[in-house]
Amino acid sequence: MNDVSKKVNAAIVIIGNEILSGRTQDVNVQSISKWLNELGVKLEEVRVIQDDENSIVETVNHVRKKFDYVFTTGGIGPTHDDITSKSIAKVFNLQYGYHKEAYDILEKYYKPENFNEGRKKMATLPDKAKLILNPSSAAPGFIVENVYCLPGVPSILKSMLGGLNNKIIGGKKTLSKTISIKTVESEIAGPLEKLQEKFKNVEIGSYPFFRQGKIGVSIVIRSTEENLISDCYNDIKNFISKKKIKQIKI
Amino acid sequence: MNDVSKKVNAAIVIIGNEILSGRTQDVNVQSISKWLNELGVKLEEVRVIQDDENSIVETVNHVRKKFDYVFTTGGIGPTHDDITSKSIAKVFNLQYGYHKEAYDILEKYYKPENFNEGRKKMATLPDKAKLILNPSSAAPGFIVENVYCLPGVPSILKSMLGGLNNKIIGGKKTLSKTISIKTVESEIAGPLEKLQEKFKNVEIGSYPFFRQGKIGVSIVIRSTEENLISDCYNDIKNFISKKKIKQIKI
Repeated sequence: MNDVSKKVNAAIVIIGNEILSGRTQDVNVQSISKWLNELGVKLEEVRVIQDDENSIVETVNHVRKKFDYVFTTGGIGPTHDDITSKSIAKVFNLQYGYHKEAYDILEKYYKPENFNEGRKKMATLPDKAKLILNPSSAAPGFIVENVYCLPGVPSILKSMLGGLNNKIIGGKKTLSKTISIKTVESEIAGPLEKLQEKFKNVEIGSYPFFRQGKIGVSIVIRSTEENLISDCYNDIKNFISKKKIKQIKI
Repeated sequence: MNDVSKKVNAAIVIIGNEILSGRTQDVNVQSISKWLNELGVKLEEVRVIQDDENSIVETVNHVRKKFDYVFTTGGIGPTHDDITSKSIAKVFNLQYGYHKEAYDILEKYYKPENFNEGRKKMATLPDKAKLILNPSSAAPGFIVENVYCLPGVPSILKSMLGGLNNKIIGGKKTLSKTISIKTVESEIAGPLEKLQEKFKNVEIGSYPFFRQGKIGVSIVIRSTEENLISDCYNDIKNFISKKKIKQIKI
């Protein structure tokens, strides 16, 4: 669903000591960002915070008021360091206890003799939370107002995003076009600056790269307006042709 | 240098539309975090924000008061979207203009005929900023008070960290030990919770993994106290042995 008359934005809150310690490389930001972009939602901020109730409550309370959607990752498993559900209950001043629907799902998934305390903890959610179904391993994520709580394990998180497509009401989709050229940034800084002044509603990014023996710059243009992207792209093609800069494939 | 009587913390501010859009996978958090940990500094927060002056000024102003050290990445190149230097000048209410030392370095590095406007822009810094030397490509990073501004290109950023070792005064180093076992989290949630209650000054993290055909849990214990790590580790060894859970290598 899209409401193309408006811009819709989002933030991600990564609840993750393991990311902060450098032990684990986050990959969820990229998955969520690309998925959101397809739905017409622009990711505008990410925060990585500690597995600490005060940090979670303070951060989520701040971003949920500032952004249309908030996605949290991590901390919804069965162990003592999984404190997202409890913290989110506190954010919204909700009761925290067994959630009937989640309990039923997990009770059905595990045999009765295996439905132990740890697994029951995963059915302990803020009162009236809506569930995000988990096709990989049953334990659901949940939604309270505009806050969507997802697990930290990348493969499980990815498997749950599709089920949210019809719950997110996006706006105008951001389109982008990239042109990679054989030059260094300082050679094109002048023309790019003029271009940015001309196209105020296009986001023009310049990214140097050094890989596979190639040195160059990728110019990325992003806008919700297809005609602006196309006009801006043509202007770039013109100035690189005048400057005899070659396009390259990367 | 270390002052082992205190805890020293840090935050990273990633100035990066390209990370938010999903185009680029950040890898700098992991590099900086591991490097900081060796120096006895604990990374406690990361924020990824847009290439936007207001966002940079507001975010850096907030985190520089809350953390001992702040590292920014990105936005110090020659193009129009590189606005970190200007924004940091605004944060500290400093003049912004040619920085003699940076200008001299860049003038020497490039031939006079190649020292164009774009390259001169990289010598435009907040007044009295201290430089962070760049052994890869000359353009320096800079320091104002407790804010350290680094480039976004991972290989260049990494090459600059070593030169900062003697500028960071760390505290007690966080030590860690990991034990990976063949089980699922819900099986060990109870004992881990008790362990966390017993070892209040040890951070005990539990991370499920599914890779290379192996399913298991990594328990990561982190503390500044070596004896606590060792005691906690022995307790874990005891309870997994009692529960007949096997250790595995991953």
